[in-house]
Parts: sequence; C-alpha cells; structure tokens
Amino acid sequence: MSKWVYSFGAGHNEGKAEMRNLLGGKGANLAEMASIGLPVPPGFTITTEVCTYYYDHGKQYPQELKDQVGTALKRVEDAVGTRFGDTHKPLLVSVRSGARVSMPGMMDTVLNLGLNDQTVEGLAAASGDPRFAWDSYRRFIQMFGSVVLGIDHHRFEEIIEHVKLDTGAVEDTQLTAQDWQRVVDGYKGMVAEVKGQPFPQDPQDQLWAAIGAVFGSWMNPRANTYRRLHDIPAGWGTAVNVQAMVFGNMGQDCATGVCFTRDPSTGENIFYGEYLINAQGEDVVAGIRTPQPMSEARAKPGERSMEAAMPNAYQELVQVRATLEKHYADMQDIEFTVQQNKLYMLQTRNGKRTAAASLKIAVDMAREGLIDEAEAIKRVNPAALDQLLHPTLDPKAPRKLLSKGLPASPGAASGVVVFSADEAEARAAKGEAVILVRIETSPEDIHGMHAAKGILTTRGGMTSHAAVVARGMGRPCVAGAGGVTVDYGAQALQAGGQVVRAGETLTLDGATGEIFIGPVAMVEPQLSGDFATLMEWADKVRRLKVRTNAETPLDAETARKFGAEGIGLCRTEHMFFDPSRIGAVRQMIMSETESGRREALSRLLPFQRQDFSELFRIMAGLPVTIRLLDPPLHEFLPHSDAEIADVATSLGTDVAAMKRRAQDLSEANPMLGHRGCRLGISYPEIYEMQARAIFEAAVAIAKETGKAPVPEIMIPLVATRRELEITRAQVDKVAQEVFAESGSTIEYYVGTMIELPRACLTADRIAEVGDFFSFGTNDLTQTTFGLSRDDAGKFLPLYVEKGIMPKDPFVSIDPDGVGALVRIAAEKGRGVKPDLKLGICGEHGGDPASIAFCEEAGLDYVSCSPYRVPVARLAAAQAALTGGGDRTA
Amino acid sequence: MSKWVYSFGAGHNEGKAEMRNLLGGKGANLAEMASIGLPVPPGFTITTEVCTYYYDHGKQYPQELKDQVGTALKRVEDAVGTRFGDTHKPLLVSVRSGARVSMPGMMDTVLNLGLNDQTVEGLAAASGDPRFAWDSYRRFIQMFGSVVLGIDHHRFEEIIEHVKLDTGAVEDTQLTAQDWQRVVDGYKGMVAEVKGQPFPQDPQDQLWAAIGAVFGSWMNPRANTYRRLHDIPAGWGTAVNVQAMVFGNMGQDCATGVCFTRDPSTGENIFYGEYLINAQGEDVVAGIRTPQPMSEARAKPGERSMEAAMPNAYQELVQVRATLEKHYADMQDIEFTVQQNKLYMLQTRNGKRTAAASLKIAVDMAREGLIDEAEAIKRVNPAALDQLLHPTLDPKAPRKLLSKGLPASPGAASGVVVFSADEAEARAAKGEAVILVRIETSPEDIHGMHAAKGILTTRGGMTSHAAVVARGMGRPCVAGAGGVTVDYGAQALQAGGQVVRAGETLTLDGATGEIFIGPVAMVEPQLSGDFATLMEWADKVRRLKVRTNAETPLDAETARKFGAEGIGLCRTEHMFFDPSRIGAVRQMIMSETESGRREALSRLLPFQRQDFSELFRIMAGLPVTIRLLDPPLHEFLPHSDAEIADVATSLGTDVAAMKRRAQDLSEANPMLGHRGCRLGISYPEIYEMQARAIFEAAVAIAKETGKAPVPEIMIPLVATRRELEITRAQVDKVAQEVFAESGSTIEYYVGTMIELPRACLTADRIAEVGDFFSFGTNDLTQTTFGLSRDDAGKFLPLYVEKGIMPKDPFVSIDPDGVGALVRIAAEKGRGVKPDLKLGICGEHGGDPASIAFCEEAGLDYVSCSPYRVPVARLAAAQAALTGGGDRTA
Repeated sequence: MSKWVYSFGAGHNEGKAEMRNLLGGKGANLAEMASIGLPVPPGFTITTEVCTYYYDHGKQYPQELKDQVGTALKRVEDAVGTRFGDTHKPLLVSVRSGARVSMPGMMDTVLNLGLNDQTVEGLAAASGDPRFAWDSYRRFIQMFGSVVLGIDHHRFEEIIEHVKLDTGAVEDTQLTAQDWQRVVDGYKGMVAEVKGQPFPQDPQDQLWAAIGAVFGSWMNPRANTYRRLHDIPAGWGTAVNVQAMVFGNMGQDCATGVCFTRDPSTGENIFYGEYLINAQGEDVVAGIRTPQPMSEARAKPGERSMEAAMPNAYQELVQVRATLEKHYADMQDIEFTVQQNKLYMLQTRNGKRTAAASLKIAVDMAREGLIDEAEAIKRVNPAALDQLLHPTLDPKAPRKLLSKGLPASPGAASGVVVFSADEAEARAAKGEAVILVRIETSPEDIHGMHAAKGILTTRGGMTSHAAVVARGMGRPCVAGAGGVTVDYGAQALQAGGQVVRAGETLTLDGATGEIFIGPVAMVEPQLSGDFATLMEWADKVRRLKVRTNAETPLDAETARKFGAEGIGLCRTEHMFFDPSRIGAVRQMIMSETESGRREALSRLLPFQRQDFSELFRIMAGLPVTIRLLDPPLHEFLPHSDAEIADVATSLGTDVAAMKRRAQDLSEANPMLGHRGCRLGISYPEIYEMQARAIFEAAVAIAKETGKAPVPEIMIPLVATRRELEITRAQVDKVAQEVFAESGSTIEYYVGTMIELPRACLTADRIAEVGDFFSFGTNDLTQTTFGLSRDDAGKFLPLYVEKGIMPKDPFVSIDPDGVGALVRIAAEKGRGVKPDLKLGICGEHGGDPASIAFCEEAGLDYVSCSPYRVPVARLAAAQAALTGGGDRTA
Repeated sequence: MSKWVYSFGAGHNEGKAEMRNLLGGKGANLAEMASIGLPVPPGFTITTEVCTYYYDHGKQYPQELKDQVGTALKRVEDAVGTRFGDTHKPLLVSVRSGARVSMPGMMDTVLNLGLNDQTVEGLAAASGDPRFAWDSYRRFIQMFGSVVLGIDHHRFEEIIEHVKLDTGAVEDTQLTAQDWQRVVDGYKGMVAEVKGQPFPQDPQDQLWAAIGAVFGSWMNPRANTYRRLHDIPAGWGTAVNVQAMVFGNMGQDCATGVCFTRDPSTGENIFYGEYLINAQGEDVVAGIRTPQPMSEARAKPGERSMEAAMPNAYQELVQVRATLEKHYADMQDIEFTVQQNKLYMLQTRNGKRTAAASLKIAVDMAREGLIDEAEAIKRVNPAALDQLLHPTLDPKAPRKLLSKGLPASPGAASGVVVFSADEAEARAAKGEAVILVRIETSPEDIHGMHAAKGILTTRGGMTSHAAVVARGMGRPCVAGAGGVTVDYGAQALQAGGQVVRAGETLTLDGATGEIFIGPVAMVEPQLSGDFATLMEWADKVRRLKVRTNAETPLDAETARKFGAEGIGLCRTEHMFFDPSRIGAVRQMIMSETESGRREALSRLLPFQRQDFSELFRIMAGLPVTIRLLDPPLHEFLPHSDAEIADVATSLGTDVAAMKRRAQDLSEANPMLGHRGCRLGISYPEIYEMQARAIFEAAVAIAKETGKAPVPEIMIPLVATRRELEITRAQVDKVAQEVFAESGSTIEYYVGTMIELPRACLTADRIAEVGDFFSFGTNDLTQTTFGLSRDDAGKFLPLYVEKGIMPKDPFVSIDPDGVGALVRIAAEKGRGVKPDLKLGICGEHGGDPASIAFCEEAGLDYVSCSPYRVPVARLAAAQAALTGGGDRTA
C-alpha cells in the first residue's frame, strides 16, 4: 500500500528536511524542526505524489488517501486533546500548500478551518473569549471564501465596512463579539448568494475542499506561467500541509512573528525580525498595526521589544534560533506564534539576504565553525559581488522614475546630460559629472564614455558596444532604453511625455536599468575585510586562472587591484581611436599604395609601443595577450559630411575621394567581412607594425624593470590553418628583426582567437601552428546561432521571454551549441598539443554559469572586464568545488 | 643497388604506363608503346626519384646514376648502330622533361643533342645532306642555348636575320648549307661572348648539362607557381627522357606530325591532325609553314594529305591509331615522325577535347565495346555539360573584346544595353533582346533579369545575387566586372576608355566572363541523342536523387525537361517581388498591428495559392519543398527617395512614416538578423498565410489532377529545436483547418533547412520534431567561415589565388569545416530518426565535387538550378561509381 500522508509533531515525525521533493519545502522542514525537538504544532503532509496522481487520473485521489488522512487527523486530535468538528472543544487546523520550491501564484493558506455555526460557540466557550471566536470564524470564512471558493476579496471588505459604519467603529479592534457575529452573518449570506449554496458547515467538507483547492491551484494560469519562466516541471507537484491551529490572537499573552536569525541586510549576527502581540499571522504582513522589534537592543523609543514584553518566550526563541542555525548551518527565516506564553514554530527556511549580508554571513559562519571554507565559498552568489564593487542608490533616497532600460553595467551614477562624446569629454575636463546619452555608441565614442560617469543608450542589448565597453570600464550603463527617444538636433531626450534637455541631471541605476530624473543620493561601496577573506579562500581552491580584458593603464591597474593574473585580451584597435592617432589611422586607410600605408603606420608605431610599454610595466611579468587589429577598416572612417570634410582637409585629400573609399570599404555584413586576420593578410604592414611595437616595448621594459613581459600575440578570426601560418610568419619575422636590432630576446607566444565554427572543427590542424587558443565566444555565438549581436535586440528578448532560449546566449554561454564547439576545439587542439593553453576572452568570461562550463571543459583561464575579476575568482572556485575539473570528462 | 634509369625501345622495355609516378607521363607511355610493338626510337628514362634525390642532397646525383646512364646509352647506341660523339656516324639524342602530370613552365625539349664541330661533319657525310646537318646543328645550339644556357631567344634570331640580309634570302628555306654554317659560327661566337666560355663541344657535357637543366627547371618560379595553383606536391619531381633522334627533316620522304585519334572538337571517329613533310617537330607548331591534313577526306583543294603523300606510312599510322585506342581505351593525342618513309612514334597521351567531343567519344566508345557504360559515365566531366546546354559564341565569329568579369552563369547572349530592370522588362516586352547592366542586382531586379537575355554586373562574386539568380534562370551572366564603370545618370558604361551607351549592343560570354562590343554570331546548343543516352546510363547507376531549385512555372518546366525528380527548394520570397504583389507585402510591413498585417496578407493569399497550384500541377505528384519566408523584411521596402514617396502615396501613408519604418528595420548584419523562422515567430500570421496557400493549392490540385502533391514545408534558419516546434505547430494547425474546410486531406511533411552551425550540433534534438533536413550550405558556409557572401569579394579571390583556400567555398563545399558539420548533423539526425530524409539545396547542389561529398555523407538528394540538373545527374552517377555511398563511412 502506498504511503500518501506523513505525520509530524507530537513525537511522531515521519518526514525530514531531505524529503523536500516528496513533502515540499514547508512540510519537510516542519517535520525536521519537530524531530530536533522544537515546538511544532502537530499535523501531517499530503505528499506531492498525490498531486501528480490527481492530475494523472482525471482529478481523482488515490483510494487509500481518505483513510490515511483520517488516521493522521486522529493522531493530531489525540495529541492536542480536541476533536475536529467537536462542538464543545473543536480542533481547528490550517491548510497550506508547499511545493519543492517556493512558488507564487498558488493557493497559500487557509487558517481556522473546522469552524462552523456550532464549533464557533464551542471555541468561544473553550477560550472564554467570544470575540476571539467570532473574529476567528469570520477570518476563516473570508480566507476560505476567497481562496477556495474564489469570491472577490472586496465583497468581504464591503460587509465589514458596512458593520463599522453601522456601529460607528473606525478600527477593527473596536468591533465587539456581536459585531463580528453580524459580519459572519453577512458573509454567510453573501457566500450563499454568490455561490448559490450555503457556506459549508461540515468540517470534513471544508477540509477536502481546501485540499482540492491547493491541488487545483498547482495548474492555475499564474502558477503555470511562473513554472515556465523558472523551468519548474509541472510533474513536481505540490504537497498539502494540515496542521493544528495555534493562536497568537487569544490575548496579551499571545503573539505572532516573523524573523531572521541574522540581519538579512547587513549579515550582522543579531536576532532580526518583527512580532505583534495578540495577532494572527496575516496581521504582521497586513500593515494595519506596526510590528515591534524582537530584541531590546534594536528597539527605538516608544517601541516594545519581544525581549521586554515576553521574556520567557523570547529566551526560548533565542534558543531555537541557535538550534536552527546549528542544525541547518545557514541563516534561517522563521515564523512563530506564542499562544498563552507558549512558543510554537510554524516555519523555517533558508533566509534571503543582500549581497553584503551573504558575504558577511558566509565568512562569519565559517569562522564560527558552522560551515567550512569550501561551504562559505559556495554560499555567495558571484553575480551579487557586482553590487559590492559599485556605488549604489541609497535605498531610502527619494527618486523620480523616468523610464527603464536594460541593466547593462552595474553601479549608479548621477550627472548632467550630454549627447556627444566630445562634449562629455569637454565638460568632464571641467570637473562636471556627466551622463553620456546616445542612441547607440561606436568605437569613436570611447573617450566620451571614459569621461562620463554613466552611459545611457536607447538601442542595443546586453552585449551592445555600449554595454560591453561600459562593463569593461566599470561605468554604470543602462542600454536599449526603448521608451526613451533622443533628438540630437534638439539636444533633448523624451520619455512618457517628459522632456530632459542637455545640461539637466539624470541618475542611472545600472543594476536595475532604471533612469531617474534629477539626482538621487548614493551609497559608496565599502569593501569589507570579509571580501578579501572570501577571495583568499576562493583563490586557494580554484583551478582556473582569472585574467582581465584591458587596453588602458587604468583598466589594467583596476584589474590587478581586483586580483587579475594577467591580461587575457588587449584589443589594440581601441588604441587607434585616440584623437592623437586616428589621423594616422585614416591616412593609412586612404593610402592607395603599400608605401603610403607604411608611412602612416610608422607614425602610429611610437604610440602603440608606448601603449604596450605601459601595460607591460603594470602587469610586471604577468602574461599579456594582445590581439592584433580586428575590426574592418571602415569603422575608423568618419561618417557625417562635416567630419568627412574635416578629415579630407587634414589628410590633404578631397571629399569625393574620402567618400569613394568609404563606399569601397562599406560592407553588407561587417561582422562577416574583411576583418581579423583577413586584414593582416591583405595588408601585412599593419600586423608588422603592431608586432614591432609589441617586441620593442617588451625588450625595453625587460631592460627597464628586470621583469620580462611574456607577450601572447593573438591572431583574430582565423578560419583556416594557413591564415595562422601566414600571419604567424609575419610576427616571427619581426621578432627576429627586433631581437637582432636590440641585441636581446624575450619569450613570446603566437596563438589565435578561436571564434569561428570552422576554427573549432579544424582545431587540430590549427593547433599545430599556434601556441595557444583563446575562445572568442562573442563572435562564436554570433556565427554559431547566425545571430548578430547588434541586431538581436529585435527578437532576442521575445525569444528569452517565450523560453525559446533559456538565457540570452551572449550573457551566458550556450552549452549545447557554442559549448559543443568549444569542447570539440579543446579536444582536437589538445589531441595534437597536450599542453596547449586554452582560455576564454568573450563576455562570457565574467559570467558564473559560463565559468562553470569553462571549468568542465578543462580550459586554463577565463578573462573578463576588470570589475568582473572578483566575480570570476569566486565563480571559478565554486566551479572547482562543485563540478568539472576533469579534462577527460 | 637502386635502379635510377629505365630503358625503352628496341625490345628492352623496363617501364610501362602504370609507372607514370616513377617515369613521368611521357616516359611511361613511351615504354608502353614500345612494349606493345609500336615503333618507338630507343631511349631511356631517368626517374623522378633522381629529381627528389637531387633536391634532397644539395643538387647531387646518386652515385650510381652515371654508370646507369652510361649503360642505357650504350644500349641505345647498340640498337641504332651509331655511337654518341662518333665523328663519322654520330648518335644524336633528344632530352625531354616528363613529370607525372603535364606541367607548363618547365624545360621542355632539346633536340639533336650530340652535335659539335666534328660530329656535324659526320652527320653531313652519313646523311649525304650537309644542309640538313648544319641546319640541325644550328637548331641544337639555339635550343640548348636558350633552354639550358638561358640565353635570350632574340640573340639567335638576330644572327639568322643578319645572314638572310647578307645573302638576300627571305625564307629560311632559301638558306644553303654554307649559310647555316655561317649561322652556326655566329651562334658560337655569341654564346662565348654571353657566357664567357665556348659552346660545349663534348657530347657527354652536353648531355649532363641538359639533364641538369631539366631537374633545375622543376624548381623555377613559374613551375613553383603552377604547382601551388594546381596542388601538385614538389616532392613528385620530374623524370628526364633521353631518346635516339629520328628526323622528319631529312628530305621529301620525311615528315613529322601531331594528331588525335578522333576529332577533339566534335568527337567524330575520324583521324584528325596535321603533318608537315621535311620538317622537325617544332616546325608544326611554329606556324612558319602551313601544316597539311592527315586524311584525304579532310583535305581541301590545294592541300596534300598524308594519306595521299605517304600512303605506306599513313596506313601504318592508321594501324597504330587502332592499336592505341584499343590499348588505352581512350582517344589519344600522338606525335610521330617519318624518317625516310619509316614511321616512329614519339609520344602518346589521352587527348584533350571539347565537352561535345567528350560526350560523343564516351558514348561511341561504349557502343564500340572499347569501354563499358560505367567507364563512359566517368569519362565526361559534368561541369562541361553546361557548355552543351546553352548557346555559345561561334568560335569563328569575329569579336571585339571590351572587358572581362567572372564567368558567373554559362551561355552567351547579345542585346541592347539597359540600366534598369523596369526598362529591361519594357523593351523585352516589345520584343527586343536586352542585356541588363547593373552595378549589382537585388531581389527587386528579378523581373528585369528574367526579361533580359543576359546580365552584367560590375560588383559581386560567383555567388552574388546576380550570379545565383542568373544560374537559376539559365541566363548568361558576367558578374563582378571590376574594369567596367557604370554611370546610371549618364546611362552609359565605360571600360578601358571605351564608352557604351544605353541602346547600344553588347555580347556576353557567361562561360568565360568576356564582354564584347557589338553582336557576335552564336551557335545554338544541339542536344544530341548521345546526351540522352549518357543521362540514361547515369540514371541507372546513381543513388542520389536530383531535384531542382525553382519558383516559377518556367523554371519548374525546364527542370523537369532536364530530368529533375522534384523541387528541392522553392523560395517563396521571390514570389513577393512581383509588381502585382509587392504593394500588399509593403502594406503588411508598414502595419503596426497584427490585424493590419493579416488584412494585407489576405490580399497576398490568392497569389501565393496560384503560385503553388501551378508548381504542383507541373510537378505532377513529385515532391515539392517550399521554404517559408526567409529574408529580412527590409529587403521588400523601397530604397530611393522617389520610390519611397511613390510607395507612401499608394499605401496612404507618409514618407516620414515609411522612412521611420525602414530605419527601424535596418540591420547592421542582415545575414545574421531578423529573418527566417525568427520572422515566423515574431509574425505568426505570415507563415500561417503561406501554409494556407500551400494546403489550399495542394487540396485543389489533388482534386483537379488526381495526382496529389506531397508538399514538404521547410522552416528556414532554425537554431533551436523550440523554433521548429513553434513554427511547425503553426503549420499543422493551418493544415487541420484547411482539411476540415475542404473535407479532404493530403500527405505533407514539415522539416527544416539546416543552415546554422548550431542546428548541425543539435540536430538530434531538432530531428525529433522535423520530418526532413535540407542543408542550406550557402548560409552554412557563411556562418561556419564567418564569411559574408556579399562582402567576400574583397579578399576571397586573393585567398584562393594564394592557396589559403583551395577553392571558393561558395562554389565547392568545404569538406573539413562545412562538410564536418553536415556529417555531424546527418549522423545525429539519423541517430534519432533512421529514415530522416536528407538533402542539400545550396548552390553546392549543382557542383560535382560537392555532389561527391553528398554521396559520401549519405544524403538522399541534391537540389540545384534547372540548368544544372543534368550536371548533377551525371555527377551523382560518377559519385556512386567511384566512391562513397556507404552511410556508415
């Protein structure tokens, strides 16, 4: 015979915490608490398997269920010493749903079940408090009526209002037993009218109706939607918990409360929560009365702490708190009731907490010996660290929301609105805080983005140019704010009828995507010692190295401060946009001859050499991966007529020639065009100049500092082995030249960015001529999905929302497609060169789920933007602890 | 002891035809001819291994070589009865290179080697002809001087001219023995002056210098370039053939000739070739005297055939011809010499031939029993069939070349130049033959391309829009003619200073890419019965089915005529550009609401239904694969301001709204944008309309004809299983609706185009919800390589030229990358659905090498443009005969 019902409490505990799948979270924890000796009112759990059976059998229950419920209920009656439906001393129960994971949208709770026109009198007699009895009855009808019978909430409120009006009462507390009886009469009449039949008087009918409502709510539309969005299988089902009622509203020696075993905001190790004397559970949440603090230490003037008001019950609760933390080894979120000075525990679960609290609790608990270091590492969500590294809006500060976009780069910023990169730079130079607002950004805007405190764009997604660059720089950014219209001509933006002009102030919250009019007060990030401690623990266990993507000295310094172990991606083209260089770059592009290009490149050489010298100096012997020029040349040409005319004059050419060249270079699909190593093969002089700048800088810094840099020169967009052979030969030739000229040599490597499906599929042949692979998973995602990052905004949000893709594949690596290619490439590459160094330098390098993938795939390092380095260090440690790490897997 | 030298002739044949790798083609065939009893002057071959040894050992010969050459030479002396260097009766030899494959750029031939100041007198005495002897000597010095000593050719010609001037002779024939002796003196003086040492007099020195020159020429720059372009490994090496001289220039009973055993132009089974009396080999080619025909039947008035002039030698040659064809079972290209009425064979090899000849010879030989049907199938190059299906320029017609582009679609066409699709249509409607000239074409030009006789573009490659569409339509096309400048405003094009205006006539040769000014006479294709015979034989052996890519009734009819077994790709968007429909399409795109779009689509429905009805009727029950809408919507919007205004008026909207919508829809990388099934998911109403049109048409045609069509509905650009699930559900729903409405059902399939790497990698999951896969290898190539077809023209030609890619991957499938993905997808797909139908519908479907790949990969069918269907049938047969076909391979 199948077991469908599990008892708990009163010394008969058939469940435990590990049985969450069968009993739901609530039921499992009630049994667990009872079995470790905590005061839990007795009850029983109808398992999730009943729910599954119910839906598999046309909404029929298993045959044995009725008897098993009867037996379990009998046990509760015996334990409490009252009978369900007894007109003198009735047993009342609560009925609650409880799935494996907490799930909004389902039926929550029916309290006081078992009351009817007879038992209410018995309750009045037994408690000696008719007002309590009638109030309980009307609460029951109201809850049952709305959640089981589906009657609109306001129908009940109308009746109470009517009685209050009639009696002249203002507060519920002014109503007497007689008044509540009138409310009950009113309720019953209304229910009979709405439902066409009287309110059920038989407690058994009430019980089975409530159980049926819980199971029914598992498939209601809101629950279905929630499950789809959170990938919860419908087959999990929900359990139902039936438990003897205890009352926090039977007088001044009664209370009910909700608390956390530590402060969920700060993580501080104090008892944190609220309680109300003479109240039932929902009163604490309803906000009609102001809940009071738990501990005297937290009580403000005029407040009465539980510690002061109910010292015995409080002391007992402090004991419970210690027991629970020790037992669960985590901060708990608990619900309790005190009935006539006796404490009852109604719920416990792991408490939600802020990022800061999460960090502090994990480190504290490890120090307290509740958990070990490995467990502490696993307890902190790496993504939450982002919050700790950036200024955030003061949660208490007033604010005026203008619109919302994508949370593209975390942190908050206030500043005056400017609409061009040049103006951002000019005003920032005068000491103003500016917010750069653009429809979208391009590499030409880099200087303005750097000068700005925050960046707002109206187009583009989480991996648009603005988003990627802002994350790299640690600038807050709200991207793709489609509700905002920008008019560059009018120097104004508009959203929902409100206009903000250049020079007016906006505030951005890059963590939520919110845009506020005017300034909002900020909270500066304070990195506690706990942060350093956790990072230290993480570094001890992780296998993956963590590098950074950085081009500027500032980025490189920031990243080192955050613990980066090298540069995994230095995008040399970002260096080309500097106003002092772009002229020479354009001259190079406009040249019709190789000698003309070489002359222009010779002007760029000193700049590039200086760039690399600074990075090498900062990285002090750590590896530095430098990607040679990647983007198509047209990205460096001016766009507007005025700019074209300017540039033409400065280059000594004419506008027509400029436009012709721009036209020649224009591409239908620049992402798939004349870029990457294709440029290096068409114009070998470009890569030669870059290689020379790298080697000259490396040799000089080796002499200057005694710490020889180890450049890893990376050839982008390789599709065939031959491309790498040709470009590597260019680099090797320049290396030999520079070594001969300078009379000293340094160690260096030449490898490739693996960012095309073909490179993955032929990685064995490519590995034969390359020293390392760095997976460029941004472009690999674009080509594997046939999905342009710049254009995906038109449909990708719909795809994610509809669940066609579980996540934005530019944010978290797609393991089945892109990941399969990475695995193929790693396997083929290591097949011919077992010690081939493998890294990842796409945006995924800072995403915890993707880092877990990298661990499993056996990569050697991840590289991410500077502010993501701590996130990556923690995620890498978690990945090492929880899975993967086996290269042969 | 290694064997480095192989003798042939005079009954001692150490080689044979199969030893081509060791002896080179020429040497192997000389030995083969000698061993089947043909009269071959004795000689020997120094093997290709000597060449390899020579380069592996710092240009040293193997120790044993000298002795082996000496022994072999002795054998020749014995056979001929003369001695090398004998001053009375000298043996003279020829020295020729001979690699495994014929290779231009290498040293070719030195004749008469062994002559010096003494032996020339001996030759004069022995032959009784001093003029012959001195002429032979000066020929030897001239050849040896230019190819062995590297002296410029004109230095020799100057000396002859000088002697002619001096003696008043006009023709070489007027020079006497004394005159030639003067020439020889002049040559020797000049050689001594140029080289700083006298012309070598020792025949052994001459011989080894000539051998060294052959081996040296293997690594000269021209040979290296040729090898790189043709993928010939340097390690193959060349052989050297040393052979006793025979003379066709010793008098009127001597002759030399070059001929083919059948007519290489027509394939006709007659003896075809040319000979010259009293001449040496190079005279036939040099063009100083007019060669005469071989057979009396081919002799024109005034000509003297060999049959008439040398009946005995001719009859012997006719015997040889029969022997060779029987022995080699192929048409031979032979060289012979008659010395004093005795025939000698100097070379035989398989003859090159035109496509028409290739076809006729293969079929004839099979009928004659020389080869079997399978061999006949293998003998015809499928690509050559293209020539037979299109009109070609009359080879004899005069022509005036204007410029050259890419041979994008075969066939030739003359017509008046027009610069717009509308004008092409208008003038064609009046019966004019027009050539449509565009910088590039877009889908809006389709009607004009259809109306034109030929298409010329100045941009874009072999797979540009113009090229693909033209091939599909069977229109001749020259694409990417970079030397031609088009000025739409001036209505003129220009190339090399010549201007052609609208209305003037151009002629295009789509098989060569040539563009001619004015008309050129054409030859209409005449499909012989041999064609049908060969196709019939091919169909008997091939496993792959051959379908066609077709949207129009004309294309479908053409393809069926050529033997297509269904439609493999009907691109429905091509139907949208028709002027009668584009208005509704644009109205749909401009609609802001679903209902607006549905209304516009309802106007399109009858057109689409009619489209499909016609195709179903023509295909008469054969499978028809219909791809639902694929391109991004912006492709359907107008571009120029005038067009935008027009369209705005006709849609009742304003220009600003049109431009805004166009702006909204514009994409950075349209290839990777909002297209394919992404449209079907964003706008389900589009696919619903298309599905309805398909099912309504299918049901109606089933009733009308009794041959129920079996539509295969294809969802494009699927990257995830869920996309196919969603769109397939749309299609299935419409099918049920139409079946219910019409009261009849038909069989149909829903599958997907596999054209993204991710689809290949997750093909097992996709196959679970799809009935078939059709590989869209155009887009798969673009995404696998990260290579835009539209933009590749900037660097792909350089890549192919430099050998970075062996072939344009859009023309012939890349087996290592794209092919690997196809194999993965086929394996994964069939893993879950063993009978999953697999086809290919990219441009590769008509490429023989790609078809061989499809055979190996176990696909079920290929689909190609109508004019490629015969090519594919033949290529599929060859693939079945020569390899692959094993699905488990």
